[in-house]
Amino acid sequence: MRLSSSPRFEQFGSVRIHQVQRVIELDAGRGRTSSSSSSSSGTVVVGRHDLSAVESRMAVVVLCMNEQSHTVESVLSGIPHDCFVVLVSNTRRAPSDGYEAEVAHLLRHCADTGRRAVAIHQKDAGAARALRGAGAGQLLDDGGLVRDGKGEAMFVGLALAAWAGCEYVGFVDADNYVPGAVLEYCKAFAAGLHLAGGGGGGDAMVRVAWGSKPKARGGRLLFDRRGRCSRVVNEWLNRLLQELSGYGTECIATGNAGEHAMTMSLAKKLRLAGGFAVEPFELIYLLQGLEDGPTTDKAVGGGGGGGGEARLAPVHIRQIETRNPHLHDDKGDDHVSGMRCQALNMLYHSHITPPSMKTTLKEWMVAEKMLEAGEEPPRERVYPAMEEVDLEVLSRVLSEASETMVVSVQPPLPHEGCCCWS
Amino acid sequence: MRLSSSPRFEQFGSVRIHQVQRVIELDAGRGRTSSSSSSSSGTVVVGRHDLSAVESRMAVVVLCMNEQSHTVESVLSGIPHDCFVVLVSNTRRAPSDGYEAEVAHLLRHCADTGRRAVAIHQKDAGAARALRGAGAGQLLDDGGLVRDGKGEAMFVGLALAAWAGCEYVGFVDADNYVPGAVLEYCKAFAAGLHLAGGGGGGDAMVRVAWGSKPKARGGRLLFDRRGRCSRVVNEWLNRLLQELSGYGTECIATGNAGEHAMTMSLAKKLRLAGGFAVEPFELIYLLQGLEDGPTTDKAVGGGGGGGGEARLAPVHIRQIETRNPHLHDDKGDDHVSGMRCQALNMLYHSHITPPSMKTTLKEWMVAEKMLEAGEEPPRERVYPAMEEVDLEVLSRVLSEASETMVVSVQPPLPHEGCCCWS
Repeated sequence: MRLSSSPRFEQFGSVRIHQVQRVIELDAGRGRTSSSSSSSSGTVVVGRHDLSAVESRMAVVVLCMNEQSHTVESVLSGIPHDCFVVLVSNTRRAPSDGYEAEVAHLLRHCADTGRRAVAIHQKDAGAARALRGAGAGQLLDDGGLVRDGKGEAMFVGLALAAWAGCEYVGFVDADNYVPGAVLEYCKAFAAGLHLAGGGGGGDAMVRVAWGSKPKARGGRLLFDRRGRCSRVVNEWLNRLLQELSGYGTECIATGNAGEHAMTMSLAKKLRLAGGFAVEPFELIYLLQGLEDGPTTDKAVGGGGGGGGEARLAPVHIRQIETRNPHLHDDKGDDHVSGMRCQALNMLYHSHITPPSMKTTLKEWMVAEKMLEAGEEPPRERVYPAMEEVDLEVLSRVLSEASETMVVSVQPPLPHEGCCCWS
Repeated sequence: MRLSSSPRFEQFGSVRIHQVQRVIELDAGRGRTSSSSSSSSGTVVVGRHDLSAVESRMAVVVLCMNEQSHTVESVLSGIPHDCFVVLVSNTRRAPSDGYEAEVAHLLRHCADTGRRAVAIHQKDAGAARALRGAGAGQLLDDGGLVRDGKGEAMFVGLALAAWAGCEYVGFVDADNYVPGAVLEYCKAFAAGLHLAGGGGGGDAMVRVAWGSKPKARGGRLLFDRRGRCSRVVNEWLNRLLQELSGYGTECIATGNAGEHAMTMSLAKKLRLAGGFAVEPFELIYLLQGLEDGPTTDKAVGGGGGGGGEARLAPVHIRQIETRNPHLHDDKGDDHVSGMRCQALNMLYHSHITPPSMKTTLKEWMVAEKMLEAGEEPPRERVYPAMEEVDLEVLSRVLSEASETMVVSVQPPLPHEGCCCWS
């Protein structure tokens, strides 16, 4: 894969946000087995070997809810073979069992391809028990099952990726109609993670900005550049950066990026938010930095001891603009779009947001009818970081008690033997 | 790339039409550098090395007419780096020069990527002179320029691919909104050509059946399986096969395949039809077989001498159903769809179509209002095969007289030095 190079970045504490890179060639050719950059053309190639090295250590978590089985099958066909597939489904199970159909498709796909995968339902009672036992009971609702929500599904997927010993984890939505886009997202994950750390497994994240989103309007297709909510969230996140540094910036272009990936090292340190606040909150949480860390000596981006003079390795945030249109199931976008703006609630309640900005933000939300006058933005849920969870308990209870977890049996699962199967 | 295997085929004379194969994985992983098939899973993997071996010897002809430059750039990003790009444009040049903009995009892309490419305009007066001088004056209209039409553009592209010494040639339309689909088409070309000949360069063709075609209807996207004209053309071609063999069949699923590729060996033997008759006529021409060959001892699929006992190597027709939706510019599909049914005119006038079938076909065309009662289906144009053209003259006059041909200069063009640059 060839990308435009990204020599510029902005740094906030230990968080280094790189300028958006564009995909120039989906396939950079066979001469490009290793990576190289060309300053004359302003591009960088991540070679096939380097892409493969990341892919074979990466779990791709597919988040699924009531999709057509056609669509799920198509998404699977787009995920590079070497990735470990983790399907987390919140598909309805009655009157007909949609989850059972998804699993049947997944298992047939794995049998055809010799691919490794695991599937679980978000409402699995055994998974709920395992999470409670492992110290993540906050994820459960009053009925004792994992709450609905995207952040909650990602938490479950991340737990399974950690359990399987993966070194990288990426997230894609199952409602994508373009398998070639799914392939591009995964390649962009691998390329960005390689560029961020050279495979060293430090703290890095790759967030995808799709190039366009086709919408059917007036009988024809129009290609929108950004959804309205994405623009709003990016703008407010960039305002926060200006508050932190004093300089105006437009460096965040991926505040709401559903398609994103990170090193497991970073994923374990992140506290995920619930629902659609999850993706923007990853950035806010990183910017909050040390103070909120699970423990002071295991800070995000931290290089070890808690001493004030210890140097923090940067957390690299790479942003990649992909080529394929993002064509997905239209589930009433206005509603979803509103929910995606949950980011603003997180921003409002963050302690790094200055009071003056909070006031402006609240006024804006009232003017936009996202809030009643005089109301406070609601607080969104924040869950413990994976490193605060007892993965051993989680794994044991899950194996014993899960009612919906299905593992493709051939070849053996990565976690058997050692912590990574590569 | 992993495909479903295709153990079944039907043979008509020397033409072997293989059952449609489906794409199972766009990327079959790093363990799959060479090719293998698994009879237990009913799939076959064409490994990366084998794909690359074909790609690096393949010209991809991009047929372009009045597309947005965004779209052309996106198509280029999807073509594998190692392929030689041949852009043939019939874009309007006044009041603003759309072709000049396309060339500027192409050259910038080549400079960024180090890719080899050539571009030409269909109405190039020098190209017209070169074609006339080389014995292909039939392509020219009364004004002495190459006629409008898809078959005519393909002829020009094929001539440039032959001139550049490519061993394989594929065709894609420039109005494709999904670069990931373009990538998949090219990979399918390479996979199919590899499977057909193991790189031996015999006579083989790969035709793509896209899995679905999204259409905006009533504010939502619906995915159609086949266009109406495609269904009609496939059905009549299959009827012809039944006439030839006696057995009913549905083996042709790609009668109108715009996305297709072939070995140069085969391409040079084919007589192309004009306009939208070009793709179905390739099949009809192959089925017509020996009798119509440019010369009796150079028959299609022929292994040499004209003796009645000489064995003909089979011409392999591979059909691959791709995964990505075929999302392209909507230029008023009904009209285009009608024109694409030009296939039926070719079928009507073919000497291998039995008289009784001609009668039925004509009646059907009248009932469908494609013909007036009592009218004969029009004859479509058929051009000489590339091997009947004097490529040396073509190349010389083109270099001297072309007004629009642009070659990316770095790295050197393939034909410099030897007949292939691999």
